[in-house]
Amino acid sequence: MAKTPKKPEEKLKVMLLGGLNEIGKNMTLLEYKDQMIIVDCGIGFPDDDMLGIDLVIPDFSYIEKNQDKLLGVFITHGHEDHIGAVPYLLKTVNTPVFATRLAIGILKNKLMEHRLNYVPELVDIEAGDTVKVGEFQVEFIRVNHSIADACCLAIKTPVGTVLHTGDFKLDLTPIDGDVMDIARLSEIGKKGVLLMMCESTNVERPGYTPSERTVGQALDVIFAQNRDKRLVIATFTSNVHRVQQIIDKSARYGRKVVITGRSMMNIVSAASELGYMNVPEGLLVDIGEMKRYNPEQLTIICTGSQGEPMSALYRMAYGEHDRITLGAKDLVVISAHPIPGNEKLVDNIVNELYRRGIAIHREATSDVHVSGHACREEIKLMHSLIKPRYFMPIHGECKHLCSHRDLAIEMGMAPQNIFVSDIGKVLELGSRSAAWAGTVPAGRVLIDGKGVGDVGSIVLRDRKHLGEDGIIVIVAVINDYDNTVITPPEIVTRGFVYVKESEELMADLRQEAFESLSDSLGMGITDRTQIKNKLRDDINHLIYNKTKRRPMVLPVIMDV
Amino acid sequence: MAKTPKKPEEKLKVMLLGGLNEIGKNMTLLEYKDQMIIVDCGIGFPDDDMLGIDLVIPDFSYIEKNQDKLLGVFITHGHEDHIGAVPYLLKTVNTPVFATRLAIGILKNKLMEHRLNYVPELVDIEAGDTVKVGEFQVEFIRVNHSIADACCLAIKTPVGTVLHTGDFKLDLTPIDGDVMDIARLSEIGKKGVLLMMCESTNVERPGYTPSERTVGQALDVIFAQNRDKRLVIATFTSNVHRVQQIIDKSARYGRKVVITGRSMMNIVSAASELGYMNVPEGLLVDIGEMKRYNPEQLTIICTGSQGEPMSALYRMAYGEHDRITLGAKDLVVISAHPIPGNEKLVDNIVNELYRRGIAIHREATSDVHVSGHACREEIKLMHSLIKPRYFMPIHGECKHLCSHRDLAIEMGMAPQNIFVSDIGKVLELGSRSAAWAGTVPAGRVLIDGKGVGDVGSIVLRDRKHLGEDGIIVIVAVINDYDNTVITPPEIVTRGFVYVKESEELMADLRQEAFESLSDSLGMGITDRTQIKNKLRDDINHLIYNKTKRRPMVLPVIMDV
Repeated sequence: MAKTPKKPEEKLKVMLLGGLNEIGKNMTLLEYKDQMIIVDCGIGFPDDDMLGIDLVIPDFSYIEKNQDKLLGVFITHGHEDHIGAVPYLLKTVNTPVFATRLAIGILKNKLMEHRLNYVPELVDIEAGDTVKVGEFQVEFIRVNHSIADACCLAIKTPVGTVLHTGDFKLDLTPIDGDVMDIARLSEIGKKGVLLMMCESTNVERPGYTPSERTVGQALDVIFAQNRDKRLVIATFTSNVHRVQQIIDKSARYGRKVVITGRSMMNIVSAASELGYMNVPEGLLVDIGEMKRYNPEQLTIICTGSQGEPMSALYRMAYGEHDRITLGAKDLVVISAHPIPGNEKLVDNIVNELYRRGIAIHREATSDVHVSGHACREEIKLMHSLIKPRYFMPIHGECKHLCSHRDLAIEMGMAPQNIFVSDIGKVLELGSRSAAWAGTVPAGRVLIDGKGVGDVGSIVLRDRKHLGEDGIIVIVAVINDYDNTVITPPEIVTRGFVYVKESEELMADLRQEAFESLSDSLGMGITDRTQIKNKLRDDINHLIYNKTKRRPMVLPVIMDV
Repeated sequence: MAKTPKKPEEKLKVMLLGGLNEIGKNMTLLEYKDQMIIVDCGIGFPDDDMLGIDLVIPDFSYIEKNQDKLLGVFITHGHEDHIGAVPYLLKTVNTPVFATRLAIGILKNKLMEHRLNYVPELVDIEAGDTVKVGEFQVEFIRVNHSIADACCLAIKTPVGTVLHTGDFKLDLTPIDGDVMDIARLSEIGKKGVLLMMCESTNVERPGYTPSERTVGQALDVIFAQNRDKRLVIATFTSNVHRVQQIIDKSARYGRKVVITGRSMMNIVSAASELGYMNVPEGLLVDIGEMKRYNPEQLTIICTGSQGEPMSALYRMAYGEHDRITLGAKDLVVISAHPIPGNEKLVDNIVNELYRRGIAIHREATSDVHVSGHACREEIKLMHSLIKPRYFMPIHGECKHLCSHRDLAIEMGMAPQNIFVSDIGKVLELGSRSAAWAGTVPAGRVLIDGKGVGDVGSIVLRDRKHLGEDGIIVIVAVINDYDNTVITPPEIVTRGFVYVKESEELMADLRQEAFESLSDSLGMGITDRTQIKNKLRDDINHLIYNKTKRRPMVLPVIMDV
């Protein structure tokens, strides 16, 4: 009797489509047969070498090409690097977005600025809920993080369960009373997880991340010891629990609260409306009514904890705030940690405050901040709860992902079951197999002003050149008919040297340009490109000899 | 009987002339009557916003103006930020330079590149020596630091002693056997110190900085556990003791040593010649002879620990080194800490090595580096040894200086005896008095290529604008005689958008430029500046509307 040939198992494809410095951040895609879902859809912040770029979004081309397969976007939490690119995605494809209430609230504000030409489907989810779309069942499971209502996702698929941790920490005394759902995670672990995708941000930090509540204790000391001062506290806008703690302490110590900075005002009103924040009646005071109180009766909560130019704290520090002038009666608290890349900006503000003699508390000197991400021991806990068959570290630079791989090996995992991925790489999973399966188009799309993707590597290279060395424009007018120079070439420079102090050099350049043109034309060269190339070379040569610099040289020839 | 009126006491002036981010680093000046001496003369590294700048030196104008008073330059140690500007100073004034042997050796190499038109007076000093110039007696006292032969200076003046710590740490088990001279420092403290100027780099770090020898222990473990691998170790070129330790371990474990990177080769040969380094006969192998050994018989010591582009480690990491290709048989050790501002560069190399699957040890994962600067407890030790009447924190951002001030207050100093200074500020000292006494011209002079000081704030502003937004050049040819446009305006852009994908925008710009010119000329405007201003405004307006960007717009009008 002939055996019926076994049908090959359908595979689940997992691919990382986002992540600038942090691989796997921003966007993940799961594909099974003719169905696919997205986890998170965030923005990245530009690197130092992306001059003039405002923000960076994932390349949607694979999604666009397969949009008929797309069943929805599932959001782990409401931070920019997880939801910020949703408006750009929804301009490309119309697909439902599933998220907990706070993330939906923030998303709605964002979408108002972007004006879609249809009403998007935004679905409110509660932690604990399961959403079924096609062959996927997505369960939202409570975790702790530096924003309220963060979840990890257990995604049941026909080949097995994928657990995506999102960003998480374990906070046993959280501000809103909801601890990470360890019970449910361990149940899911017991039932068997095919693949765990786990964040790696703090994998190089030993121990546990302290509870958000320890910040409250530090604040309590500050409030108790500074009853004679006005308090100015800057923190992350989206850290609803942090803001809540500042509000609670203010109420306890008999202070009114002033909110300044547009995004801070937005979040306090949105979070209060949605019930994520509890502001006692009459506690908030409009900035215009501050004068009715003594300084020591006030707490000012403000933006600018990342040193952002023109934020409320920035303007206060540099004496440019139109309503608030800092002085000896003020104590500034920066309740935040600089995001990598922002260190200098924050330091500038801190130094400026010290320079003006204003007292300041910050992370380096007091416990006024804790991280929102799991440290090494918490990450180990997640591994031991989930015990996945396969593991993919995500959310980190390559060094973090590799350290996380080493941690998993240390915990007993077989190296061949660990997959350190990269943007665009596809992992193909069967119920008992996992293997790399090529790549899909993926990468970063740069946003500069209104333009999406029209700034590429050549433009960036030119910007770098212009920024470091400046430009010299040489304009020559040539008689098209008899190939003679009509008027002496004009030289204009920007970002090169201070021209008034370099008149001799300018005269040399004009002379050189004239001679170069005369040479070319004298030799009977009529091709404009050839003439321009010689002009560029001659000028480059002269400048390098005289100054050891290499500005961009841009010859323009006008034919009349 | 009439009392003879007491002659007012002559004062000692102390001023900080150097320091970019780190106030008081690079250069200090002491002036008494018609005599003055300089302590250190180093370079700063450019800030992020100093686009295209190679390095930064102190403004010498006060010294130049008073050069007949200058008796000499005293160098604490041979790091770039303490000696790097000496060649520039010696081009301005001819004055003797006093320093310990290693610093003099490095300085001589440096001066060869700069070609002075006279033979400068460089004076070799031994730790323990005292140099008398005019009314100043400068005693060189041994301290520990991340370069051999570092000293602090006790400067005896007619009004009292000034103790300048330079950079220091306390290493009780140093590699060269010389511990910081605590006995002499305490003697000087007992005799009475008028002013202590103490470094502040690590004032926010608790405890003590570990001994350089702990790095040796970590290296020992790495050498013992990786007998089957080639070792590639990157460190600071000037950290002679670190390099010595790597050489010692290599000898002990039967490895030959290859040195790569020009500055690393220079320092090893200079330090060996001067007796600061001890390299066993036959241990060093030329890079061309590497093939004669198995990989596990070799240690490669290289530059690039700061992630410097085109350094030896950089080229190896990116597979661009012409002699060394890294692979699975290699272990890379980065025995250094990134200098503030270099974090991203180092991370890029680390990530690239991980990406290529190359094993790596670094500060975050092993004890392969220690700081060269005193932590909090060592700084306290210095205070308790010296017990100065007045105190000025130096070498740090404003936040460090203020933290150091707070530390001194914690230790019992009266706040009014502490002077947090700034670049150019003058402190006037009598034997029992200290007070601010105005400022002198001071600041930073930017060096770009050959040019010293010809890049000012306008040029930097233009570079920033060009770098972030690019440039649009519009060239129009106008008939001088009848004020008509002769040929359609030409538009050339760089660093703006990728032109081939923006043809429509380019056409709009040409059209707008033509209309703007016609408008002006039609209205009878002949003033070229007026025409150009309108052209710039019109083009700016159009571009901002269409793209929300603000490139630099540069109109050029050619009259024929």
